Amino acid sequence: MSEKKQLVEPRTLKGFQDYLPEDAIARKRVIRTIEGVFEKYGFLPLETPALEYLDVLSGTGGDEVNQELFRLESPEGEEISLRFDLTVPFARLLAQYPDKLKVPVRRYAIGPVWRADKPGPGRFRQFTQFDADIAGTDSVAADGEIIAIMVEIMQTLRAPSYRVLINNRKLIDALLEDCGIHEEASQKHVLRVVDKLDKVGLDNIRLELGPGRVDDSGDPIPGVQLDGDTIGKILDFVAVKGTSRADIVANLGQLLPDTDLSRRALDEMRELAEVLEGLGVDEDHACFDPSLARGLDYYTGPVFETIIPKAKEFGSVMGGGRYNGLVGRFLDREIPATGTSVGLDRLMAALTKLKVIEPSKTTVQVLVVSLGEIPKAETLRLASELRAAGIRTEAYFGKKMRMKDQLSHADRHEIPVAVILGEDEYARGEVSVKDLLGGKAGKEHIEKRDEYRKAGKDAQVTVKRNEMVANVKRILAGHESAQAR
Amino acid sequence: MSEKKQLVEPRTLKGFQDYLPEDAIARKRVIRTIEGVFEKYGFLPLETPALEYLDVLSGTGGDEVNQELFRLESPEGEEISLRFDLTVPFARLLAQYPDKLKVPVRRYAIGPVWRADKPGPGRFRQFTQFDADIAGTDSVAADGEIIAIMVEIMQTLRAPSYRVLINNRKLIDALLEDCGIHEEASQKHVLRVVDKLDKVGLDNIRLELGPGRVDDSGDPIPGVQLDGDTIGKILDFVAVKGTSRADIVANLGQLLPDTDLSRRALDEMRELAEVLEGLGVDEDHACFDPSLARGLDYYTGPVFETIIPKAKEFGSVMGGGRYNGLVGRFLDREIPATGTSVGLDRLMAALTKLKVIEPSKTTVQVLVVSLGEIPKAETLRLASELRAAGIRTEAYFGKKMRMKDQLSHADRHEIPVAVILGEDEYARGEVSVKDLLGGKAGKEHIEKRDEYRKAGKDAQVTVKRNEMVANVKRILAGHESAQAR
Repeated sequence: MSEKKQLVEPRTLKGFQDYLPEDAIARKRVIRTIEGVFEKYGFLPLETPALEYLDVLSGTGGDEVNQELFRLESPEGEEISLRFDLTVPFARLLAQYPDKLKVPVRRYAIGPVWRADKPGPGRFRQFTQFDADIAGTDSVAADGEIIAIMVEIMQTLRAPSYRVLINNRKLIDALLEDCGIHEEASQKHVLRVVDKLDKVGLDNIRLELGPGRVDDSGDPIPGVQLDGDTIGKILDFVAVKGTSRADIVANLGQLLPDTDLSRRALDEMRELAEVLEGLGVDEDHACFDPSLARGLDYYTGPVFETIIPKAKEFGSVMGGGRYNGLVGRFLDREIPATGTSVGLDRLMAALTKLKVIEPSKTTVQVLVVSLGEIPKAETLRLASELRAAGIRTEAYFGKKMRMKDQLSHADRHEIPVAVILGEDEYARGEVSVKDLLGGKAGKEHIEKRDEYRKAGKDAQVTVKRNEMVANVKRILAGHESAQAR
Repeated sequence: MSEKKQLVEPRTLKGFQDYLPEDAIARKRVIRTIEGVFEKYGFLPLETPALEYLDVLSGTGGDEVNQELFRLESPEGEEISLRFDLTVPFARLLAQYPDKLKVPVRRYAIGPVWRADKPGPGRFRQFTQFDADIAGTDSVAADGEIIAIMVEIMQTLRAPSYRVLINNRKLIDALLEDCGIHEEASQKHVLRVVDKLDKVGLDNIRLELGPGRVDDSGDPIPGVQLDGDTIGKILDFVAVKGTSRADIVANLGQLLPDTDLSRRALDEMRELAEVLEGLGVDEDHACFDPSLARGLDYYTGPVFETIIPKAKEFGSVMGGGRYNGLVGRFLDREIPATGTSVGLDRLMAALTKLKVIEPSKTTVQVLVVSLGEIPKAETLRLASELRAAGIRTEAYFGKKMRMKDQLSHADRHEIPVAVILGEDEYARGEVSVKDLLGGKAGKEHIEKRDEYRKAGKDAQVTVKRNEMVANVKRILAGHESAQAR
């Protein structure tokens, strides 16, 4: 027996994922759509490397993010790390290139980030962040533009239902001040509890703001220990609704005492309502929601979150807000900023579930079938003509070159059209064009197929060589209009 | 004095680079163009993570690549590493998902790769690879398609001069066999020497194939120690020219003895010539060059390299070839493959030098100037109308909101049009549209400006609100047609 070669087992790193064409095609499409929206709003791309100096990422103080870093050593022995988000690198650029990146700056960035936390379903150690931020202005107009972007992204992607929820850290601060909750730990605790409203319901929230409760598994959940009046105040506040964004601000005003803090918060929300009206953002798709508490300990002004009510299980598909501490670790001055981060994987998952994103097995429009008896140069000539006409064309070359193998390749990839040059056709200067989508059996396709048939289109036609492109285009156009219905 | 906060110095890792908008915009444009070409040829995107298990990357034997790896540890303590190319991850996918990725497979991939070697000018530790490969066929038709892609990329990018050089490992093997050079070390040595032909010239090559020589710095360069006849044979061979690709094959045939090896090599090149003709690849832009020796110890059949003669200093901007050992480390069978890798950074540098790629400071088409006395909602309404018309629009919000600050922002970014809503205009339901490119002073613009003026276009017009979009579009169209001249 011959000695066996030592083989390596092909495997993906734990907590990481590969994107095969079916996923990668749809991802690319969504990414280009979102980039288009960002560019329409005046955002420019920026790119930074995956690796950064450790102190750039972790700052001078350590925090929980520190433990999640994929750390390594540079060839020079310095401590470096894979980035865990795109915000810190953006802040670095602003501090590092004050002349080239003069504020106000609108930038977008897309790229992988890495976190060494525990992987789980839908939770990966490498994932894509897709951010757009406006730095250098504290005008609420910029916040309004971010909200308009979130709405336009969802609209452009044809999400069947979506809602951008908007709150403001300053409003909550005014509420907490009114409630006499001044200690940071208690404030955070209240926010954490309010954030669970949707998940555990009003009664449980009431208990968690007060004495605490025991959860379903029997574990005790300690409470914030607030008195009944205070709890009532908080719950009344977060339950405020209204007929419009302006109406909600008015109703919130009724519940808050007239202090500097509350006036500033209400003024800001009133202006945001005006700005959103100017931007044409309709009330249905972007609403003020005082119960939104996500990220409020990080953000300093308006906060936003996009949910898809029909795919609620995926949670927030975009989030963002105003954070004025952006460059704090690098500079002795503040650069105010507001922005949004698209959760690309979640967004894709939600829209796929709702069948808004149909997985595409291919972007190829035509397979040119190569038969053994025909010189390869001749079949490639056909491919070349189709490409010159802007048609995405694959010429089949594989180990097995039977017609059957080639057509089953087209079938597997759902390539809609095949062009076949047989010996007879070749001799006559003709070519066969086969409508694979129209000619396909199978229940799910019967309806479409009948439609094509009705329109008098046969599954296969033999045409003159110089009519090939026109015939392929006709079939592709037919598929498109059938799909649009 | 108050205690000073400890600040982190914002800095980029040594050997790494940031892409500010001027570079990032042009990069994105080139990337989308190339992706478009890949898709037109039937290639589908694939994505793999940045990190891989060490043995997946390095194989079972160690090699020089091993030392260049950025290695780290997974949270589970396994040896992992940043990928150093996109080819090994592609091979892993082919071996790992034989059912989902049935060959033949055409995939493209773009992404960063990392090498811990010594950084230098134009040499970075993180750089972008951009590959297209066809796996699962050993047909030379696939090699021809790769060459056609290289040509089409250069053509689509409007490179003013370019040449795809083509050689074949099998041809060189036939030559080496004929010269009686059988030892692998000597073969590699010969290829290394021939590869330097362009750089050091014929006379030096002659010496290096023979007894060796002393270079300009006085260092001895050991020779291959071939005799004069053999050297003559090699130099005659690599100097072969011809009037066409087919002619060059015929001329090479004259120099090789009639052996199995030489017949196979010549047949393959003859077929490649036919295939390229079928694909419409013209002789000027893709030629056979027997002196091309780059990467010949890795490739197993045709090899390709794209150069830009007018920007020769950037070297090869695309390279590729056939390599049938793709999945060898994972599987007990071969999957033949051929492909190309675009050297994105070099290609960008070369085309920028030739002014084919003009650095763009922005993609923004209109800056909406916001004046203090006008409600922000009103200026945003204008921005919203422009965007709804598909015009990329930035609304200015910064710390300083004087007209001067806003227009100098537009100037710095070379934003071509400003829309201004002053108090008077606002009262009259009008808006001012300013042609910033046409109205710009400065020598380099005089010509263009005159052209605009001649066309009767003023630098600024005040129009009714409902005529704003049409006027902006008119100005943008004027710029475009002036630029196209």
